[in-house]
Amino acid sequence: MSQSRLWSPAVSRLEPYVPGEQPKVLNLVKLNTNESAFAPSPRVAKALSADQIDRLRLYPDPNSTNLKMAIARHFDLQVNQVFVGNGSDEVLAHAFYAFFQQASPLLFPDITYSFYPTYCNLYGIEHERIPLADDFSLNLADYHKPNGGIIFANPNAPTGMLVGLADIRALLEHNRDSVVLVDEAYIDFGGESAVSLINEFDNVLVVHTTSKSRALAGIRLGYALGHPGLIDALDRVKNSFNSYPVDRLAELAGIASFEDDDYFQQGCADVIANREFCVEQLTKLGFDVLPSAANFVFAKPTFAPAATVFEQLRERAVLVRYFNKPRISDYLRISIGSRADMKALVAALKDIVQKG
Amino acid sequence: MSQSRLWSPAVSRLEPYVPGEQPKVLNLVKLNTNESAFAPSPRVAKALSADQIDRLRLYPDPNSTNLKMAIARHFDLQVNQVFVGNGSDEVLAHAFYAFFQQASPLLFPDITYSFYPTYCNLYGIEHERIPLADDFSLNLADYHKPNGGIIFANPNAPTGMLVGLADIRALLEHNRDSVVLVDEAYIDFGGESAVSLINEFDNVLVVHTTSKSRALAGIRLGYALGHPGLIDALDRVKNSFNSYPVDRLAELAGIASFEDDDYFQQGCADVIANREFCVEQLTKLGFDVLPSAANFVFAKPTFAPAATVFEQLRERAVLVRYFNKPRISDYLRISIGSRADMKALVAALKDIVQKG
Repeated sequence: MSQSRLWSPAVSRLEPYVPGEQPKVLNLVKLNTNESAFAPSPRVAKALSADQIDRLRLYPDPNSTNLKMAIARHFDLQVNQVFVGNGSDEVLAHAFYAFFQQASPLLFPDITYSFYPTYCNLYGIEHERIPLADDFSLNLADYHKPNGGIIFANPNAPTGMLVGLADIRALLEHNRDSVVLVDEAYIDFGGESAVSLINEFDNVLVVHTTSKSRALAGIRLGYALGHPGLIDALDRVKNSFNSYPVDRLAELAGIASFEDDDYFQQGCADVIANREFCVEQLTKLGFDVLPSAANFVFAKPTFAPAATVFEQLRERAVLVRYFNKPRISDYLRISIGSRADMKALVAALKDIVQKG
Repeated sequence: MSQSRLWSPAVSRLEPYVPGEQPKVLNLVKLNTNESAFAPSPRVAKALSADQIDRLRLYPDPNSTNLKMAIARHFDLQVNQVFVGNGSDEVLAHAFYAFFQQASPLLFPDITYSFYPTYCNLYGIEHERIPLADDFSLNLADYHKPNGGIIFANPNAPTGMLVGLADIRALLEHNRDSVVLVDEAYIDFGGESAVSLINEFDNVLVVHTTSKSRALAGIRLGYALGHPGLIDALDRVKNSFNSYPVDRLAELAGIASFEDDDYFQQGCADVIANREFCVEQLTKLGFDVLPSAANFVFAKPTFAPAATVFEQLRERAVLVRYFNKPRISDYLRISIGSRADMKALVAALKDIVQKG
């Protein structure tokens, strides 16, 4: 008998997200998932001591209060303006459920984090994709129209391009009756955060992750910042799904990271320096590189098709990301690794260009 | 302006689950959330070594393949018969989405894990509660009727009472066209698992947690076992929600636990011995104790109302769980702790009885 008789009809309609490849092979230069090239703060290891491991027999605090306090302190917010989850993907999923199941469509750019349409499918949310300009810039004036919510990534993915705070403020002044979600996964690498608008606008929700600038992709920890009423809605969804989404070690690791601000700042500065080095080298090698405020660059090789260069890099043990999708199939997304990673990338590219 | 203008209408209709209290006060005898009284396997601490913590900068394996292999080996199953998630609550949530959004109602007992109706609310799933018998036993013949799915906990919560494998088989033989989910969170403390029916029936899904018998409540790790077609449906939902639900440390901790079977077996035997001691003492003190196959007992004090005994225990630093709900408001749910915890409970109860 067919298994499909057992599935909810909704499941057949899902279009699951495909994450970047996690290769089993070691010794690859892995520049395909925008992870950090640096280890997390040494305080993380200290926080995860043996006595904490014995306590794993106990449930975590379902409200992650100590972690929320550390985050609130960092951003000069109140604890009730902070929501935490098992990675920013979970936080986004709950936000889609909490705010975007509306009569009017959700608006987001045609080129952006490809999980957004996936969430829409999961919850049956109508949506409209607003095209980026030809130069991939995001014009928020295009979003001045009736909607059931607006979401965009800033900097955008996979372009890395930034939209300024003045533009976000102008959008919020015009759009007061639906939630504007600013997905700032990459904001710490050179952008200005919309967190400063939270106390002024009750409909802006800012989502962050610890997977990039805090080097904790492996621990799964994301958070949302906004008006207590928005946080309350997210809590209702969370408490209808999983009471304890953040485990004990993730909470401890997150707190340790937020308590080590010097390490955090230095890590971001190092990524920015490596990005500048990478952009300079790629430009020399014949790439068109979009202006990036993220820990990756989006770059178009002019000497060969992007799909070919992707394969040639892979043959040389350098893994980057290629999206075979309209408008962006000429580009490669390259994560900013350590200086050694960047030099390995450049060496592989020189080899490709010479043999081409 | 009211925040509710920003919420999805669905959010206002949610009825979030309320987990057992996690007190901030130390030195309580904590018998209210069915955690393990014993630490996890010493191999868990060894697995979470410093070099693993440096690797937290990298995403986990989105498919948790090594963990699934360890689980499959333990149960003598194939890897494609295993699904893992961030606690069994997340696994259950995905299962409700994947299988129970049907035209006919989901069936479950009137007295059971109170998260089931919460999930129904979250996804708009119609359901029908089938009353347990007067003695709280679960008669699966009551479920021989049209349905869009069946879920029950075995042993049941909060009663601790077990239904036998022959009854489950009879149900499955009668009910082939909807998913029968057996929530076996407490099966390791004396029950016979329905895992043995998976290769025979393609519509039985068995859900387990590592929070109880494996002493890993703090790490958030649950799993489902069933036909590859059921696992495929769960994967589709998971990959539409969060690609990486199980973090690196949770995967390592889970593997370490499954690799230390002696420790696991001894822990279960110790809980059973402490349960027998507890039942004997409670009976002597004037409790009616339901037959339990779990790491808790459901017991009715005959010398005073349950709500009063709950408060009197709390005053004596012993925390148990009281449900002020129809049919069960005369009972207390008491987790099985260490032998010292059980003696502290008995001492506090003797004090209460003497002063009553």
